[in-house]
Amino acid sequence: MKFTVSTADGHARAGLIETNKGLINTPVFMPVGTVGTVKAMSPEELKEIGAEIILSNTYHLYLRPGHEIIKSLGGLHRFMNWDRPILTDSGGFQVYSLSALRKIEEDGVHFKSHLDGSMHFLGPEEAMLIQSSLGSDIAMVIDDCAPYPSSYAYAMTSMYRTIKWAARCRELKREGQALFGIVQGSLYEDLRKKNMEELVGIGFDGYAVGGLSVGEPKEDMHRMIRFTAPLLPENKPRYLMGIGELGDVLKAVEAGFDMFDCVMPTRNARNGTLFTSRGKLSIKREEFKADSGPLDPECDCYTCKNYSRGYLRHLFLSKEILSMRLNTIHNLHFYLNFFRNMRKSIEEGMFGDFKKRWEQIIP
Amino acid sequence: MKFTVSTADGHARAGLIETNKGLINTPVFMPVGTVGTVKAMSPEELKEIGAEIILSNTYHLYLRPGHEIIKSLGGLHRFMNWDRPILTDSGGFQVYSLSALRKIEEDGVHFKSHLDGSMHFLGPEEAMLIQSSLGSDIAMVIDDCAPYPSSYAYAMTSMYRTIKWAARCRELKREGQALFGIVQGSLYEDLRKKNMEELVGIGFDGYAVGGLSVGEPKEDMHRMIRFTAPLLPENKPRYLMGIGELGDVLKAVEAGFDMFDCVMPTRNARNGTLFTSRGKLSIKREEFKADSGPLDPECDCYTCKNYSRGYLRHLFLSKEILSMRLNTIHNLHFYLNFFRNMRKSIEEGMFGDFKKRWEQIIP
Repeated sequence: MKFTVSTADGHARAGLIETNKGLINTPVFMPVGTVGTVKAMSPEELKEIGAEIILSNTYHLYLRPGHEIIKSLGGLHRFMNWDRPILTDSGGFQVYSLSALRKIEEDGVHFKSHLDGSMHFLGPEEAMLIQSSLGSDIAMVIDDCAPYPSSYAYAMTSMYRTIKWAARCRELKREGQALFGIVQGSLYEDLRKKNMEELVGIGFDGYAVGGLSVGEPKEDMHRMIRFTAPLLPENKPRYLMGIGELGDVLKAVEAGFDMFDCVMPTRNARNGTLFTSRGKLSIKREEFKADSGPLDPECDCYTCKNYSRGYLRHLFLSKEILSMRLNTIHNLHFYLNFFRNMRKSIEEGMFGDFKKRWEQIIP
Repeated sequence: MKFTVSTADGHARAGLIETNKGLINTPVFMPVGTVGTVKAMSPEELKEIGAEIILSNTYHLYLRPGHEIIKSLGGLHRFMNWDRPILTDSGGFQVYSLSALRKIEEDGVHFKSHLDGSMHFLGPEEAMLIQSSLGSDIAMVIDDCAPYPSSYAYAMTSMYRTIKWAARCRELKREGQALFGIVQGSLYEDLRKKNMEELVGIGFDGYAVGGLSVGEPKEDMHRMIRFTAPLLPENKPRYLMGIGELGDVLKAVEAGFDMFDCVMPTRNARNGTLFTSRGKLSIKREEFKADSGPLDPECDCYTCKNYSRGYLRHLFLSKEILSMRLNTIHNLHFYLNFFRNMRKSIEEGMFGDFKKRWEQIIP
């Protein structure tokens, strides 16, 4: 994996990640394909809207169908019929957020499956083995995500554990698979800094900031975004994990982050909330009943080119599968287009204007 | 609308329906798009697998979103982005099968919406007005579907009502929209015959047999199929409503029917039951867990070309939307392909062999 920053506009940067499976222009949004499918989408549809990389979840795929099955079926790319890059998270965050019970020990986490209550163990060895079986292009180290709020003492213990696990993952790094480190440390700046320095000492292909958007106030999130970005090496991709509200994305890109993932565009689509050039829109509203116009007059996605708001409202109220398909195409297209335009604005030295314009639309 | 029989093989016939919206090769299977979408499919996907006509339901579209809304949005074709022929049923069967309460009077049916319990009235005027608003290419007369079992007296009353309503619908027939009559009469041959003769006297663009597959024994259904087909005019399309089990289809085509609709391929797909060249298959079965082969080795649909049984099982167990999409593409492709091959066998004078071969596979 090779990364080059092509243009900088302030701290915001436009770059290129080169992988064996294709190019990734940054800043990049990675649609989330939790269990080996980006919900409601086909791989061809993802390509049509310009997705260059997707994210998939180690925790989910480990529990079902199991990484050994995916390996025996040719790896995750073949399994899901997606030949472009895939980033897999390590499962750490899902163990933290989904499992009914978790017990953290020095060499990993015992946890209970959210599917059937069975007990499992995930440590650096397991996380690396699973991601190796999946065959993702970018693997993530397993981290210990501290909840919000966390005491300084708890956050420090958790941060040192994260460093220790990262070092072990690094030893197990597999040829041909990039590995990113993850910075924890809750809302404590010195812990974040310490974690970062240790990770750089170990050396990774990219660096991620985790443990945000876990319930903390927005101001704290933004403060940590501004604080952590400059700490991350300039010559490596910087990934802000799980944050995808566009207002937050603008702040993070301004600070120098390159990579993002979030279920928001896909989940909102299925709930009938759609992103447009004029702000969000709830398709179920009565006013759209006989509306012959497209979701967004400025959008050229498949949905907007072919279907009226009236039809989309009808499909949504009828709980039709096509509703989720068309809404997801639109929202993901909107997100990817937003990122393309943001990148262009950086290349043209106009990121400030881009940010200002969108901050009027997205409160 | 123009219909020509091009080849006959025994009573089985291959024909062509010409409409302003395109050609329909018969025998034809019409995928069901109940509320203005064939569940899980896009219009482009329907075209790719060769659907030449779809069916949509007057009852459902009348209740939601309402025919006036669809009319104001440019008619059903524009509404759902489908530019090939559409047949709409009259709503008679759904009032019979879905509404919580129905009261049949001489000029129509009072019924309760299955959606919100509101009361509605559907008679010949309403059925024709709604179908005219939808702008379907083929409209159906409203009929009175007698339940199984029905006494001779009840079936006769219901049959005469069906004739009366058909005559009224014929008076209201709209320029540019074909209108088919429907034969009722329960399992009584003389009533079926009488109904048919009266319909032919009125004169329709095609003739349908309704009131079967409502709970009667298979032998009775097959007897009525054999009995009614020869009564229907040779120079008009013959439509056997709502029957789509392939064993029944073979018997009906042998008797001389041309048109079919059924929710089976789409509904089964969503339930994980898939049609293959070797019979039905339940994708959830444990044995497919690590199966790298396609659903059906003899199938060239998008699903079979790109996905393994192992992946399809995983998607189904995970209740993913893509599961319903891929399964529906396969099942509808299977059905349309079955009909194409059946048509070819008629053209080659080999329908008997085709029927015999498939009767080994589908019990």
